[in-house]
Amino acid sequence: MFVKFRLIACAAAAALMAPAVALAAPMLGFSPGDADAERALEAKFDAGLSPDDLQARLKTMASAPNQVGSPHDKANAEFVLAQFKAWGWDARMEVFQVLYPTPRREALELLGPTPFKASLTEPPLPGDATSAVRDGALPPYVAYGGDGDVTGELVYVNYGMPADYEALARMGADVKGKIVIVRYGGGWRGLKPKLAQEHGAIGCIIYSDPADDGYATGDAYPEGGTRPDEGVQRGSVMDMPVEAGDPLTPGVGASADARRIPIADAKTILKIPVLPVSWSDAQPFLTALAGQAAPKGWRGALPITYHTGPGPAQVHLVVQSDWSQKPLYDVIAVMRGAERPDEWVIRANHRDGWVFGAWDPLSGQVEMLEEAKSIGALAKAGWRPRRTIVYASWDGEEAGLIGSTEWVEQHADELTAKAALYVNTDATGRGFLASSGSYSTQRLIDQVAADVKDPETGVAVRERTLDAMAVRGLAPDASEGDRRLARAASTGPDLPIFPLGSGSDYTPFVQHLGITSINLEFSGEEEQGGVYHSQYDTFEHYVRFGDPGFRYGVALAQTAGRLVLRAADAQVLPLQFGELAANIDANVRELHELLDARRAHATAVNQLLDRHAFALAANPDHASAPPPREDPVPAIDLRPLEDALGRLKASAAAYDQALAAAGPLAPATQARLDAAVMGVEHDLTDPRGLPGRPWYRHLIYAPGLLTGYGAKTIPGVREAIEDGRWDEARDYVARTAQALDAAARTIDQATATLKA
Amino acid sequence: MFVKFRLIACAAAAALMAPAVALAAPMLGFSPGDADAERALEAKFDAGLSPDDLQARLKTMASAPNQVGSPHDKANAEFVLAQFKAWGWDARMEVFQVLYPTPRREALELLGPTPFKASLTEPPLPGDATSAVRDGALPPYVAYGGDGDVTGELVYVNYGMPADYEALARMGADVKGKIVIVRYGGGWRGLKPKLAQEHGAIGCIIYSDPADDGYATGDAYPEGGTRPDEGVQRGSVMDMPVEAGDPLTPGVGASADARRIPIADAKTILKIPVLPVSWSDAQPFLTALAGQAAPKGWRGALPITYHTGPGPAQVHLVVQSDWSQKPLYDVIAVMRGAERPDEWVIRANHRDGWVFGAWDPLSGQVEMLEEAKSIGALAKAGWRPRRTIVYASWDGEEAGLIGSTEWVEQHADELTAKAALYVNTDATGRGFLASSGSYSTQRLIDQVAADVKDPETGVAVRERTLDAMAVRGLAPDASEGDRRLARAASTGPDLPIFPLGSGSDYTPFVQHLGITSINLEFSGEEEQGGVYHSQYDTFEHYVRFGDPGFRYGVALAQTAGRLVLRAADAQVLPLQFGELAANIDANVRELHELLDARRAHATAVNQLLDRHAFALAANPDHASAPPPREDPVPAIDLRPLEDALGRLKASAAAYDQALAAAGPLAPATQARLDAAVMGVEHDLTDPRGLPGRPWYRHLIYAPGLLTGYGAKTIPGVREAIEDGRWDEARDYVARTAQALDAAARTIDQATATLKA
Repeated sequence: MFVKFRLIACAAAAALMAPAVALAAPMLGFSPGDADAERALEAKFDAGLSPDDLQARLKTMASAPNQVGSPHDKANAEFVLAQFKAWGWDARMEVFQVLYPTPRREALELLGPTPFKASLTEPPLPGDATSAVRDGALPPYVAYGGDGDVTGELVYVNYGMPADYEALARMGADVKGKIVIVRYGGGWRGLKPKLAQEHGAIGCIIYSDPADDGYATGDAYPEGGTRPDEGVQRGSVMDMPVEAGDPLTPGVGASADARRIPIADAKTILKIPVLPVSWSDAQPFLTALAGQAAPKGWRGALPITYHTGPGPAQVHLVVQSDWSQKPLYDVIAVMRGAERPDEWVIRANHRDGWVFGAWDPLSGQVEMLEEAKSIGALAKAGWRPRRTIVYASWDGEEAGLIGSTEWVEQHADELTAKAALYVNTDATGRGFLASSGSYSTQRLIDQVAADVKDPETGVAVRERTLDAMAVRGLAPDASEGDRRLARAASTGPDLPIFPLGSGSDYTPFVQHLGITSINLEFSGEEEQGGVYHSQYDTFEHYVRFGDPGFRYGVALAQTAGRLVLRAADAQVLPLQFGELAANIDANVRELHELLDARRAHATAVNQLLDRHAFALAANPDHASAPPPREDPVPAIDLRPLEDALGRLKASAAAYDQALAAAGPLAPATQARLDAAVMGVEHDLTDPRGLPGRPWYRHLIYAPGLLTGYGAKTIPGVREAIEDGRWDEARDYVARTAQALDAAARTIDQATATLKA
Repeated sequence: MFVKFRLIACAAAAALMAPAVALAAPMLGFSPGDADAERALEAKFDAGLSPDDLQARLKTMASAPNQVGSPHDKANAEFVLAQFKAWGWDARMEVFQVLYPTPRREALELLGPTPFKASLTEPPLPGDATSAVRDGALPPYVAYGGDGDVTGELVYVNYGMPADYEALARMGADVKGKIVIVRYGGGWRGLKPKLAQEHGAIGCIIYSDPADDGYATGDAYPEGGTRPDEGVQRGSVMDMPVEAGDPLTPGVGASADARRIPIADAKTILKIPVLPVSWSDAQPFLTALAGQAAPKGWRGALPITYHTGPGPAQVHLVVQSDWSQKPLYDVIAVMRGAERPDEWVIRANHRDGWVFGAWDPLSGQVEMLEEAKSIGALAKAGWRPRRTIVYASWDGEEAGLIGSTEWVEQHADELTAKAALYVNTDATGRGFLASSGSYSTQRLIDQVAADVKDPETGVAVRERTLDAMAVRGLAPDASEGDRRLARAASTGPDLPIFPLGSGSDYTPFVQHLGITSINLEFSGEEEQGGVYHSQYDTFEHYVRFGDPGFRYGVALAQTAGRLVLRAADAQVLPLQFGELAANIDANVRELHELLDARRAHATAVNQLLDRHAFALAANPDHASAPPPREDPVPAIDLRPLEDALGRLKASAAAYDQALAAAGPLAPATQARLDAAVMGVEHDLTDPRGLPGRPWYRHLIYAPGLLTGYGAKTIPGVREAIEDGRWDEARDYVARTAQALDAAARTIDQATATLKA
């Protein structure tokens, strides 16, 4: 049976079962009458969206390499600026000067046992004319690794994540004075050379194993959509979990006259040389390794026995960069709010790619522009938002969220005062809605997802995404995370959202300034993985494997556009706080689980060390070492956090109830309410920041210092427990409790205003 | 740091920490004085064991192909018979005539898109002279598949286990009228063609993927020990989970004049042709498949995109066998007991291999013979066992446990009356003691493992094995089973043992007749996997990768020999029943978990079907189908089982306590006690057998009908719940409860005898 038939039948059935629920539901922040008007506006907005325009725009913008500093990057900025203007927006260019290294010299050779020279190139592929375009393209590289010319023995360290170094130590090996080769995956790229450097390595090679995004996962491009044999993943290795943005202007906007620190003092630049390669370049290096056979989780899909080394492979690695400054072109478009112009709803997507960037970021960029086009048309027809809407096209995201961060740092005071919501997108595909965001946006997202139709099935995006989560949780290979999500999808009132980690431009907004933020994409059915950050991320690839017909591009515009329009038009900002309290409650329970697991593990390891169990259980034919003794886990009292959370729950319930009961409010009341509501996310930050990374100020969400992309919730406490810094854990329990109390007080103020 | 240094240091420390514990511990079934004498006897027994003799014997016995019907199989039988006699045993040959198919014609071709003819051969390898021996060897094949000459489209079904067929159906594909290709692993070989046949396939190819036992797992032979590119796993595909032994003489010994059923009526012979191949023969077939890309758990380690098909690969498969009868040579050696000759302690290992069989079975065979040699020497020096000891060298195990099963069926009445304990080994390696057995043997095994030294570390085998279990449970990739075992190892009084599934000759003893049984091996550090059942399972391979120096062969002889000697010499059979009750208790808890999980799954699946979630969550670009609706799980009352278990616990505790308190007993009392103790395992059987397979009579342990090797505990109930046969589940709850009650009554009798 083929699914197309079934889907039509089922979609019809589903439509019969859930008639007009969406229209009957209340709309958060709107009175029933206003909600009807807003839905009428949204219908007009939808009518202004054209998949053909998306496609044409993508073809233009992805026609040439557009990394920072390239002619096409500037041309795209000017194109976007002109478009905004043509659509009636008050648009301008903001230019920053930032440190942006580009490759001057790269070499990678296997000196022996069998000499081999890596090609470091990505040849054209049949059927993809864009892949043959060379003009303006840089060779594959990673930005912000060190300069170096090093020779040494090679060691394979799997994904190069902390657990891999622990496993390597258990195998009796280390990387001191050696060159590591690691594969992409398992965590953020930049952590791989950072951890290699911290463990004493002198160089780092990162390759794309076909097990992770190549032929093992599906037919390789151009036959299918996965990474071709010679495809290389470029990227940044800036130490972004410590601080994002231009490394020379920490904390301030990189205007032409900003004060800059010397490159040597920049703490987010690595010291060792790093080079990314394809698996076809990597295979001879991996084949030349001896030593222990790699354990199960370390084996990729190349037809070899993976060994850890070290050696006998001897490697020569050279990386030298041009460390000059390059211009960044942010394009900012403003539509002034009719009633509360000093409250801003900001909507953005970055524009710079590594080469052509059809997927990343232009699929999201052209979609965002489609929203701006349609909103411009609404405005031309006479409509005005209540609050100010700002659309932005960021440059320099790939290198370290630079365009957004410099803009945020440049306008920090104004944004702190005025930014009500930040809505971000980046590359997008098709399938299901993946939404992450500040917990207070959960209901808003849920309501919007219920009002947008999934292009493939005709049911609401919300329903299809909930179904996908529930179905995934039942799969035989479902992870514990999958099962938790399925439970949340089956039992919760809303579409579950994820906490914000990092990996796109919301980071300076939410984590540095405490601005309520959302990040959206459609994904799950496309076949991107393989061309990510390569010469093959082309228009040709996207229209075959990304979003053929751009139907999900339109659905994303409908989703993000509704978020923007509702946030701009609602009488009170459409946030509520019961979900904030409930999600933090789940995060606190995870802290308990973490403490229990950490304690049980320390006890078990130490008992086994006492009786020499690791040594006795080891195979004497293989080098090995026992794990280090663990610091016993003391009592960490989480009650201050739980007590504060109890108060927050009560405050949130009172506000949400009062908001639901509220009738039309006087304009002054609305403004006072908005001010309070905007303050809640700020209350969750601490100006002293997180341990060792003061730029990150949010006490509820942060990218993990040792995961990079993935969010760590209540990070001050969680990472302190993970690393056994007990006093710091207690300190951040107190700080986070204070933040929750501050948020509760602000919410109480809002409730009082509502009831006044 | 290298482990050899550490191990010496730690072994010394461990020796200091646990001084002479072994000598101080009581010996189950012995009075303290008798225990001292027994330990002195065991020291003499140990002194008679020679690693050099093991090595020399292996070299001789593994020098030529020795499968059933080969000249060297008969020569080995005669060699073993002569050895037993020379060592003073009363030995004889018992010959059976059994249906034993051998290949007459085999062919496997890919007709298109790109024609290819499989080589179906295993070439000699450098450095392994035995691998070049061709005289008497059969080509790779599997025994008891059907004859056939079939042509059809190919479908890849991963491991070919039930979950794989469910996944294939979810992908909208099936195997009806097609030829399936599956990889080895994930469950017993014979289930693969059986399930293919049940799903309508017309032929079955089984190949060894390098992910499972080839180069992905370590360097391939001869560089390392894993499966070479052209290595093929032979084996039996007889439907053994239904019944073992000669398919033509079900339930009776296959003597020359036994009544035989026609081949067409034999229910354990498959209908479709089946052929095993190497990965180098399989790769062109897999490469020729299109259709959906295989999901994650289906991907092997070949450098291709695995697809499911069906087609476009067209395959031609031919298998024709010689279905004549062949002779089996069991060798039986008896040492008559001085006091209770009609109680038998039986010790055996099979002797037939698929080719040279150095690992499987001869590593165990030559070890078992070493025990017999040393016991023979004890007897020559004047010692006599209290009970009769029987050593047996089985033929025809590989084809379907035939030599042991026919002997058991031939002597069923006598064995039911006289067999006190059956101790089995098969292939063995090095590392840790893996012991499975009747639960009543747990303490006996524990005590013996505490008295044998691990050759590599010098600590007791018991300690090292417990340490390995505990360390494994802490590994980041530990399974839930690993963690459970680690908890049992850390908290239980004994070395945990596993329940008996199938895969070696204990099956007819324990599962058909209800004779208390044990199965032992050393494993965990050797690198066998890859040559299993191939032309490369040679003496050369074993001495490099199996047990260099035969130190673990000697340790296994010390272990199994002690079990035999203690069981033969104890005043009361050295079994106790607290462990029986405790392990059944754990098994009953698993039944509760199974019911809960089954119920939750049925509810979740049916709810998702009601709202069309599977259809909505599916990718419309790929064929797919929802899972079938599940029968709701009714209440299954396990209380009868729990009530009976409560009574068994009380009876067991009373017996174990009384035994520990008992002084020397009068001979008549001892004999009455033994009779009762031997009856307990019989009480756990039901002459009506298990559902659909009456030959399997044990109500506590059975090989899973759909797992093959793996044990299912309380199988009548468990498999009925798994398959949704609710009335049958209730029926077997009652039967199993009755069996537990019968066991409790027998134990009570024994306790009364002890106290009389």
